Amino acid sequence: MITMEPVGVVHSPYKTTDELHSADDSRTTPVTIEVFEEYAEGLRDVSAGDKLTILFYFHQSKEAKLIVLLKGVGPLAGVFSSRSPNRPNFIGSTDVEVLAREGRVMEVIGADMIDGTPVLDIKPTIIAR
Amino acid sequence: MITMEPVGVVHSPYKTTDELHSADDSRTTPVTIEVFEEYAEGLRDVSAGDKLTILFYFHQSKEAKLIVLLKGVGPLAGVFSSRSPNRPNFIGSTDVEVLAREGRVMEVIGADMIDGTPVLDIKPTIIAR
Repeated sequence: MITMEPVGVVHSPYKTTDELHSADDSRTTPVTIEVFEEYAEGLRDVSAGDKLTILFYFHQSKEAKLIVLLKGVGPLAGVFSSRSPNRPNFIGSTDVEVLAREGRVMEVIGADMIDGTPVLDIKPTIIAR
Repeated sequence: MITMEPVGVVHSPYKTTDELHSADDSRTTPVTIEVFEEYAEGLRDVSAGDKLTILFYFHQSKEAKLIVLLKGVGPLAGVFSSRSPNRPNFIGSTDVEVLAREGRVMEVIGADMIDGTPVLDIKPTIIAR
């Protein structure tokens, strides 16, 4: 068994998955990512304009499914061909752009995460070849 | 605390990180990803040509650092501006292209993982905007 601890948390105006997915502007609405004190130094070289990939924990997922409805509506597909939150290990990934960073807090756009989401990792995005 | 279980394992000709990083052709050398029986159905819609993002566990990492040498040689940078394996939660991410799949085993290229690496998740790659 592998164990992990959140390195930070998301603060967003979207409190539920339904709110997030029904909003037209969720991808352009700034959200805040707070990195916990103990990991703050890891964020020191992040600045406005950086493209980052946020790995997070789908903390509201209750069960993993192997066959899911694509985008929640269909058709059915194997979970590894989908980005469903009901997946083994409940890990999500979303690419963001940094608007601003002050200390261990940064404002980003592009995020697909609800309020209270635990952040597992932050990486510079690799642009697809 | 968050707990995870591997959904599969990597079979690669590169047995160590040194071997992987000193090889000129590591990004074009096919590696095999074996999904464990219990998760096999999740792979049913994956086929040749698919672009996938593999999330994996840096199983040889011993400690997390907050300041790292970029690409192992420098300059120094905060870990969240790097893709160092010595990071909180030891999660790696690599984008691959599927060459072939047969049942719960697929051959991919582009992988940046050594032999025996535990696979945590497989997602369709989102092309950067």
